[in-house]
Amino acid sequence: MKSLSIIEIEKLLRKFPNWEYQNEFIQRNLKFSSFKKTIDFLNEVADIAELKNHHPKLINNYNSLIIQLSTHDVNGISEKDFDLAEAIDKLSL
Amino acid sequence: MKSLSIIEIEKLLRKFPNWEYQNEFIQRNLKFSSFKKTIDFLNEVADIAELKNHHPKLINNYNSLIIQLSTHDVNGISEKDFDLAEAIDKLSL
Repeated sequence: MKSLSIIEIEKLLRKFPNWEYQNEFIQRNLKFSSFKKTIDFLNEVADIAELKNHHPKLINNYNSLIIQLSTHDVNGISEKDFDLAEAIDKLSL
Repeated sequence: MKSLSIIEIEKLLRKFPNWEYQNEFIQRNLKFSSFKKTIDFLNEVADIAELKNHHPKLINNYNSLIIQLSTHDVNGISEKDFDLAEAIDKLSL
């Protein structure tokens, strides 16, 4: 596995309109109608992360959730991040 | 309810050795033996937060959890934060 170049990341991100490249992560920002729904979604993300053995950084502030993906092993962004982003995007909000 | 002064915060923090005042929050940093245990603890904190209707900022990165408390209504730290910190400290790790 290798880290993706900025050009490769930006190209892939065209297929992921919910995500942006920022602070050396690919990041999605979500808002929910309640704290409970936010934590429920966080748990769904955590379940997928555990299944794929690839773990995001999760930042929760009341009804806001920021998901940041990067790949420690390559010290950058890899296909594993886009694979996890795709799985997260399949979850219903 | 009023915001506590730095002196009041530092005085109260003597009773809360797990917490420190930082970045305009009172903050506790935790490490766990697995991602699953980290998320389980996050959920226990979320349950207490919902019960008390006072919500922390939660930052999870694999087996690390940072809990940051502040009180939006007073734009600072209040007794509500120390009340929540005390309840969180009663949870078993």
